[in-house]
Amino acid sequence: MSQRVKIKALLQSQQTDIDVTVKGWVRAFRSNRFIALNDGSTNNNIQIVVDFENTDPALLKRITVGAAVSVVGKLIASAGKGQTVEVTATEIEILGDSDPEKYPIQPKKHSLEFLRENAHLRFRTSTFGAIFRVRNSLAFAVHQFFQERGFVYLHTPVITQSDAEGAGEAFHVTNFDLNNIPKTDTGEVDFKQDFFGTATNLTVSGQLEGELGAMALSDIYTFGPTFRAENSNTTRHLAEFWMIEPEVAFNNLTDNMDLAEDMLKYVIKYALDKNADDIEFLTQRLEEEEKQKPQNERSEMILLEKLQFCLNHDFERLTYTEAIDILKESTPNKKKKFVYPIEGWGTDLQSEHERYLVEKHFKKPVILTDYPKEIKAFYMRQNDDGKTVGAMDILFPGIGEIIGGSAREERLDKLEQRMDEMGIPKDELWWYLDTRRFGACPHAGFGLGFERLVLFVTGMGNIRDVIPFPRFPKNAEF
Amino acid sequence: MSQRVKIKALLQSQQTDIDVTVKGWVRAFRSNRFIALNDGSTNNNIQIVVDFENTDPALLKRITVGAAVSVVGKLIASAGKGQTVEVTATEIEILGDSDPEKYPIQPKKHSLEFLRENAHLRFRTSTFGAIFRVRNSLAFAVHQFFQERGFVYLHTPVITQSDAEGAGEAFHVTNFDLNNIPKTDTGEVDFKQDFFGTATNLTVSGQLEGELGAMALSDIYTFGPTFRAENSNTTRHLAEFWMIEPEVAFNNLTDNMDLAEDMLKYVIKYALDKNADDIEFLTQRLEEEEKQKPQNERSEMILLEKLQFCLNHDFERLTYTEAIDILKESTPNKKKKFVYPIEGWGTDLQSEHERYLVEKHFKKPVILTDYPKEIKAFYMRQNDDGKTVGAMDILFPGIGEIIGGSAREERLDKLEQRMDEMGIPKDELWWYLDTRRFGACPHAGFGLGFERLVLFVTGMGNIRDVIPFPRFPKNAEF
Repeated sequence: MSQRVKIKALLQSQQTDIDVTVKGWVRAFRSNRFIALNDGSTNNNIQIVVDFENTDPALLKRITVGAAVSVVGKLIASAGKGQTVEVTATEIEILGDSDPEKYPIQPKKHSLEFLRENAHLRFRTSTFGAIFRVRNSLAFAVHQFFQERGFVYLHTPVITQSDAEGAGEAFHVTNFDLNNIPKTDTGEVDFKQDFFGTATNLTVSGQLEGELGAMALSDIYTFGPTFRAENSNTTRHLAEFWMIEPEVAFNNLTDNMDLAEDMLKYVIKYALDKNADDIEFLTQRLEEEEKQKPQNERSEMILLEKLQFCLNHDFERLTYTEAIDILKESTPNKKKKFVYPIEGWGTDLQSEHERYLVEKHFKKPVILTDYPKEIKAFYMRQNDDGKTVGAMDILFPGIGEIIGGSAREERLDKLEQRMDEMGIPKDELWWYLDTRRFGACPHAGFGLGFERLVLFVTGMGNIRDVIPFPRFPKNAEF
Repeated sequence: MSQRVKIKALLQSQQTDIDVTVKGWVRAFRSNRFIALNDGSTNNNIQIVVDFENTDPALLKRITVGAAVSVVGKLIASAGKGQTVEVTATEIEILGDSDPEKYPIQPKKHSLEFLRENAHLRFRTSTFGAIFRVRNSLAFAVHQFFQERGFVYLHTPVITQSDAEGAGEAFHVTNFDLNNIPKTDTGEVDFKQDFFGTATNLTVSGQLEGELGAMALSDIYTFGPTFRAENSNTTRHLAEFWMIEPEVAFNNLTDNMDLAEDMLKYVIKYALDKNADDIEFLTQRLEEEEKQKPQNERSEMILLEKLQFCLNHDFERLTYTEAIDILKESTPNKKKKFVYPIEGWGTDLQSEHERYLVEKHFKKPVILTDYPKEIKAFYMRQNDDGKTVGAMDILFPGIGEIIGGSAREERLDKLEQRMDEMGIPKDELWWYLDTRRFGACPHAGFGLGFERLVLFVTGMGNIRDVIPFPRFPKNAEF
C-alpha cells in the first residue's frame, strides 16, 4: 500500500489512475456516496466516491462530519463541478468516530463567537484553516525577507526586570506562592527570595535588547511574543501577541521607512502567491458578510483588491505636522464629525483621524513621521527643531497603525536628558546607556504587530480570530 | 557617495578598484595604520588602510577598540596574509567614540563568565558573533525544513491556565500587586479578580495545544519560548528557553523518528553550509580550549568532525529495554564506575548512561524508544505489553537528550485511565480530551530544545552562552 498523500498534492496531481492512500477528516457526506475530505493541507476538499452498495452499512453510518478516516482508492479524473480529480474508494477505515449528536462543529454557519469558545476545534472549519495557513505564510515570509537581507534573528528575553517603555502595563512573573508572599522586615515584598532575586515582568517589547544586538551585528530582528496587561476589551487588542522588531545600525529614518514598506509588500505578496485559494475563500467570506451590512458601511474594495492596492502604491509619506494641517481643514473636522476634533498641533491622533487620512484623503497606506516628542517614547531621536522626534507610524486601511518605529537617540547626553524629563530610571537601563557610551552610531528600527498584519491580510474583523488561542481580560482558556 | 556595503559582501567582492563606503566597529588598530573593522555580517574583519601621515592626529587618537566608524575609500586587492581585499581610506568619520580606559571589551581574551556579565556587549566579540550567527541559521533552517514539507507554524499560547505535564515547575503570571493580593472570604487568593479571572502560568510546552492544531491541519510545528521555574544551576538548564515542537496527524513512532532525524541533519547541514567561517572559528576556539585540559578529558573529535559525523551516520535505534541490557553488561557498570549503577529494568537513565551509549558504545547519535510508562508523560501512547509507551529520546554526543517525543495516546479510554492513575485533572484538559472524542487519529510529535541544538553545533559548554540574555536562578539582567 502506498504512503499517505496530502490532499493538496492530490488535487494538483498531473497523474490519474493511480492507487493512493489519503487520510483526513470528513467535512460532509452526502447521498451515502460522496465524502468531502479535508486534511488541512489546503482549503479544498477532495471528493471520495464510496461504493455504498458494496459497503457495510455499519461503516457507512460512521462516516460522519468530523470523523477521521483513512481511504485507499484510485485517483481518477472527475467530471464533477469545480474539481479535476476524485478518489474512488476501495477501502475505508474509520480512525476516529465523531458522534453527530455531540460534535460541536456542525456543517452549518457558526458564529465567530461560538467558534472562539471552541477554539480547540475551530481549526477544522474552512475559515480558520485558511486564516492559520495565511498566518503561517506571513510568519515564514517575515523570516525569509530578513534572512535574504542578512539580518540575524535574535531571541530577546520574555522575562525582564523592567517595563521597557515605562507604560506600567506589564504582567508580573513570580515563583512565589501567591498565598504566602515573603515580606521584608519593613513589610515590603521580599523579591530577593523570588526565583530571579528581583521583581520580574513579561516583556512589552524586545527593542531595547534588540538594539544591543544591532550595535554589533548591524542588522537584527526579533519575532517573539510580547504582552500587555491592559484592560482593553476591543477587537484590536490582545494581552499576548507576537511582534517583529528589526533594528539596523547606520540606518536613518528614510532607510527605516524603506525597509518597513519593502517588508510589508514582500510578505503580503508572499501570502498572495502561496495562499491564493485561502485568500480567495476569505475574500468571498467577507463579501457575504458585507452583504449583511447597510450599503454605506460596506468596504469600497474587496479583500483581494485591498491587498493588491497596497502592493501597487508607494505609501504616502508626510510629517505629523502636515497631517494635522490636512485634518484641521478636512470636511469631517469642519462639520464636527470627529469625536475628537482637531484643534491644533500636539495631540495624538485617534483611530478616526488615521482612518480618514488613509481611507478618505490619500486612499493608500500612509507613513506619518516626526511626531511631537511629548507623545512618543524616550528613545526616539530628537529632531533639531526641539519639538519633534524622528518617529514613523505606518497606517493601513481598516487597521490604523500597523507599524510604529523611529530613529533612535544615539547621543548619550540627549538620551539621558530625555530620560530624566520622562522619569525613566537610568540605573535600571545602564546596559542600554552603555551602547551610547561605547561605539554609538545612528540606528533605526520599528515594531510590527504581527496579528494586525494577519488581520489585514485575512480581512477578519476581530484580532481574537487570527491567533490560535487569544488571551484577553478574563480569558486564558486552552 | 556610494551606499554602505556590508563587510561580508566586500570580502567576497569580485570587483576591485571601486569606491566603497563601509561602516562598523573597530576590532583593532595597529601601527596607527591598519584598522580591523567588523560589522557583524561575518566573523572576518576587513582591513582599512589609513594614510596616517595625512590624517589629523586628533582623529587617529579616536580610532580605538569599540569605536563606530564610517569609512569611504577604495576597495583594492590586498597582498596581506589571509585577505584578498582591503580598503584604502580616503575619509574616516568617527560615529561613536569608545574610551579605551572604560570600554569593558578589550582586545584580549575575556572569560566567558565576564562576558556573561557583559552580555549587552558580548555580541561584539568574535566568539559571540559566531554563536549568534549560527543560532540564527539554525532557527531559520528549522522554519525552512518544516515549510518545505507543508507544515503550519502555530503560535501556541505562552500564558496558560495549567501546568501541561503536571511537573509543578511553572512560573506564575499575575496582574496583582504582590504587596496586596486580594483574598476571598475563606482567605484564599481571589483569582477571579486577576487579569484572566483565573490562576495562570508560563507555558512549559506548547504540545497539547499543538495537538489541537494537528487534528485539523495535519502537520504543524511550534517554535516559541518555554519556561521552567526549576532551581537548577547547571550548564544545561535555563529558566527561559526556546522549543520546537512538531506534531503530525497519522504519524506513528517510526515516522516520528524519521522526521526528527531528517530535521536534525537538515539544520546542521544548513549551518555548516551557511556558516562555514563561524564554525571554523568555533572549532579552532574549542581546540585551543581543549589544549588546556588533560589528555584523557579531551574530545576524540574536533567540532567540525562531530557535526559531519552526525550527518554521515544513521542514528542507532533501539528500545529502552535493549539499552538497559547493554548498560547492565557494560564495563563501567560492572566496575561500579557509574554514580547510579544499573540494577534492572524500570529506572530512568542518567546523563552518564546516555553518554556511555552514545559516546562509547555506539559512537553515534542514538534513539531510544519504548520507555517504561511510569517514567514518561500521561499522553504517550501505551504499548500492547502494558508496561511501556511509544516514547523516543534522541541522545547526542556531549549533550545527552536533545529531543524527546512520542506517539500520542489517541484512545480516549486509555488516555483517561492513565490521567486518573497519574492524577492529571481531566476537567482542566476537557479541550484536549475533546480531540479524542471527535475524529481522533494516531499522531506523533516531539520537542527539540533549541538551545541544546545550538550548544551542540557551536561546541560551547554552557547553555547560558548560546542564548542572548540567559535567565537562570537569581538572574534576569538586561
